[in-house]
Amino acid sequence: MHRHFEEVEGELKNQILSMGSLVEDMIHSAIQGLAERKNEPLQKVAQNEEQVNRLHIDVDNRCLNLIALHQPTATDLRFIIAAIKINSDLERIGDQAVNISQTTGFLLAQPQLERKLLDIPRMAELAQSMLKDSLDAFVRKDVPLARTVLDRDAEEDQLKSESFNELMQLMQSDSSTIQRALGLILISRNLERIADHATNIAEDVIFMALGKDIRHHAEEAE
Amino acid sequence: MHRHFEEVEGELKNQILSMGSLVEDMIHSAIQGLAERKNEPLQKVAQNEEQVNRLHIDVDNRCLNLIALHQPTATDLRFIIAAIKINSDLERIGDQAVNISQTTGFLLAQPQLERKLLDIPRMAELAQSMLKDSLDAFVRKDVPLARTVLDRDAEEDQLKSESFNELMQLMQSDSSTIQRALGLILISRNLERIADHATNIAEDVIFMALGKDIRHHAEEAE
Repeated sequence: MHRHFEEVEGELKNQILSMGSLVEDMIHSAIQGLAERKNEPLQKVAQNEEQVNRLHIDVDNRCLNLIALHQPTATDLRFIIAAIKINSDLERIGDQAVNISQTTGFLLAQPQLERKLLDIPRMAELAQSMLKDSLDAFVRKDVPLARTVLDRDAEEDQLKSESFNELMQLMQSDSSTIQRALGLILISRNLERIADHATNIAEDVIFMALGKDIRHHAEEAE
Repeated sequence: MHRHFEEVEGELKNQILSMGSLVEDMIHSAIQGLAERKNEPLQKVAQNEEQVNRLHIDVDNRCLNLIALHQPTATDLRFIIAAIKINSDLERIGDQAVNISQTTGFLLAQPQLERKLLDIPRMAELAQSMLKDSLDAFVRKDVPLARTVLDRDAEEDQLKSESFNELMQLMQSDSSTIQRALGLILISRNLERIADHATNIAEDVIFMALGKDIRHHAEEAE
């Protein structure tokens, strides 16, 4: 009476991709609000969050039912476990986008600090590309693509450190900038964390595809 | 040929509790280094991290094997899925403790900023109690205890906001404090995030025990 595993697997992939699109859009909208100094995009973030939260619960329940009904083993089981973990990461990426949006709301009520937002737009772009590629790697079981995500995490960390140092100098030279510079520091931390979640997703994809754990530097030279 | 599920379940609980003790100890040591201005406790953080990373991989593999061999359903399956999620949260709490330890290393190389560390020791204590109780709730399947963890998260957020405001005022009144105050702000964010992970664990415990998802305010009045 059970449907083929491939069929339910396909539905699960689509649901994860839908969540992925929603959270990518949340990051994009939050940073758009910041860069263009507009409140409208921030409303989009709040709207998407509700949908993401609903999907988060749906995906978990679907995965539990899948395991109970199909009793998958080996690759199929690793696929579902990866989906459960990716589901959590996506929900938490959504939370980070909400935090960015809230800080942006505060910043928009203040005079503009910098015409150019230092490395923040680049950090957002990089984090979004990491997220997108980690999910594409998941649905295609594409290990080389997942590895490119891991490689990009160091660049995100580098950009975060540079922004941090520039903003600290700005605060030190002009104390009237402190509150706003702090806001930008928090936003760059949120973006770094989004990149970390994308990295976690990529690691789960590699584990799923190879049955090999590459976390914690367990990976050896190839 | 399979051992009883209860036996392997007991081993899994013990492994999760071991990880829990290691990461609690990491938080404790990092904050001890900060409060007592000593570098020695920070070395403990790095040592424990290696063990946590090994356990993280072991627990995931054990859970996968458990599902594949025992094909659990209902409560038993929810227990294993909860263990997989809690395992990720514990590993990430360890990462936060490492971040606190690194920032503390920087602060110890500077003159002391404040004799009293504002609300930070209290935040650490609260986050540790939330972590401990969320894990006790997991092994005992104790829903009322898990609920007390959820209740404490608001206090942690409140303490974080108060510290943030005090530190911002300090920076504004004396720009020589900016670097150090920023360090403390980052540490209080790390502690808040640890409390968030403990909250996630408590939510997973409630889901596991009741088969009911209380995340995202889906819970109704009882």
